[in-house]
Amino acid sequence: MSNFKDQLKIARAAVDQNLEKWLPIPDNLSARVVEAMRYATIGGGKAFRAFLILTTAKMFDLPEQNAINIATAMEMVHAYSLIHDDLPAMDNDTMRRGKPTTHIQFDEATAILAGDALLTNAFEVLADEATNKDGSIRAKLVKMLAHLAGKDGMVGGQMIDLIGEKQTLNLEQIEMLQDKKTGALLMFASTASAVAAKATEEQLNALKTYAKCIGLMFQITDDILDVVGDSATVGKTLGKDKTETKSTFVSVLGLDAARKKAEDLGVEAEQALSIFGDKANALREAARFILERNY
Amino acid sequence: MSNFKDQLKIARAAVDQNLEKWLPIPDNLSARVVEAMRYATIGGGKAFRAFLILTTAKMFDLPEQNAINIATAMEMVHAYSLIHDDLPAMDNDTMRRGKPTTHIQFDEATAILAGDALLTNAFEVLADEATNKDGSIRAKLVKMLAHLAGKDGMVGGQMIDLIGEKQTLNLEQIEMLQDKKTGALLMFASTASAVAAKATEEQLNALKTYAKCIGLMFQITDDILDVVGDSATVGKTLGKDKTETKSTFVSVLGLDAARKKAEDLGVEAEQALSIFGDKANALREAARFILERNY
Repeated sequence: MSNFKDQLKIARAAVDQNLEKWLPIPDNLSARVVEAMRYATIGGGKAFRAFLILTTAKMFDLPEQNAINIATAMEMVHAYSLIHDDLPAMDNDTMRRGKPTTHIQFDEATAILAGDALLTNAFEVLADEATNKDGSIRAKLVKMLAHLAGKDGMVGGQMIDLIGEKQTLNLEQIEMLQDKKTGALLMFASTASAVAAKATEEQLNALKTYAKCIGLMFQITDDILDVVGDSATVGKTLGKDKTETKSTFVSVLGLDAARKKAEDLGVEAEQALSIFGDKANALREAARFILERNY
Repeated sequence: MSNFKDQLKIARAAVDQNLEKWLPIPDNLSARVVEAMRYATIGGGKAFRAFLILTTAKMFDLPEQNAINIATAMEMVHAYSLIHDDLPAMDNDTMRRGKPTTHIQFDEATAILAGDALLTNAFEVLADEATNKDGSIRAKLVKMLAHLAGKDGMVGGQMIDLIGEKQTLNLEQIEMLQDKKTGALLMFASTASAVAAKATEEQLNALKTYAKCIGLMFQITDDILDVVGDSATVGKTLGKDKTETKSTFVSVLGLDAARKKAEDLGVEAEQALSIFGDKANALREAARFILERNY
């Protein structure tokens, strides 16, 4: 799997370099919020979503600098969602990516503001001339990310997740939760470069199927890891789902059926990629990585 | 002042109608966050920023539907900022616009998510084809709002405001705080329609001066109202600045000098509008309203 892991590292480095450019520390009292934004983004996490954007960009010959801006916006939104999810009023998590969460490292107010500013900044990056020379494409990417990250996407999923902590969800509701909460941003990450490069409808649809499969797989393996994973390896508090009697794929399907479902989705994801031939090898490795991950 | 007050009501009604279109309640468990978004926006507040957008749109013959979308995005961002500002970890306010704040009416987690979703949704509205037929203008509006609402604008100002609760700020720092926290969104509200209608540099600069003046005036009169205003009329908790020994224009300049400064800014705002002749009468009334407001 060296190709995939190398590309993850390359994505992380490219986004970090761009984050340095977009998040300079100002010489005034507002510096604190920028420090928190940097703490939550630079060098943080696997940059899996950024990898998807950069890899699909290569498949469609989208200029690398365009893709890096899209990937940076994506990672800003992902980081904002983690900061807010970790807040005491939400999941109340104290560890993330192997270090204290933003509200622990700074304070709650600064964490709320850093999340707000990262979300806002993501749209500034997407709308920037360097992201695409065609203004209507820039606007399209903004609309797409806003739709997938907002009430109809990620935030809607987070709302359902919170409700699910207090009432039992059925499989259909868990799938909707996942489709919005985790799936929506993976949908953006899997298709944004193709949209920016004006890919064909057939190509876009293949990537959408791939995104749906890996989104579900991602959540199922997340639920499995919460039960069988090792806290130090995963880098966050585990076993929380059971403590909070949360409805998950594992609690509804059981461990074996959840694993089987993830494997079936892996097969479907590979099939969707067949129209791209060898060009999609990194995406294939990514799907296998999700299936087999232990962190 | 009937012209100005009538136009405020017209702006409120136009934005409310558009919010109904953009915020339908979904038939699934995510409905709760949309209900909170509607609670915090529809029928709430004077719609002063929306008025500025609709009024300047008329000055430059921008199609009304374009302007209503821009105004709706603006009010979404304004409402999100109030929801998050009112949170226990921030200003900890329980009343806003004469009713319980969003986290009191719903709960803290839902309030955080409703703010996040309104901010996100604002960019979806701005990037929508109905906002402007020219994609590069849509992208420009997105970039402008993101810049003014984020770390370099409103959120940066909110950060300085929080720091100002713990340390004394000098006049220069209070002006920077205000310029970012209140001024940045008023800058967007005063200039967005002109940008969308491709106004001349001279026209844009005149509106920027106007925006700077009314932004400062707005904050100064806000600080004055906190000392001399009536809670029931203003519709929120007053006297908080003194209780929290916060640095404000009144605490640094004194009541009389603060009033004088606001009056001088009113004169400057009127002068900036001279190039527009009678077309800017509603903007003139708006500036006088800010000077004389008691809520």
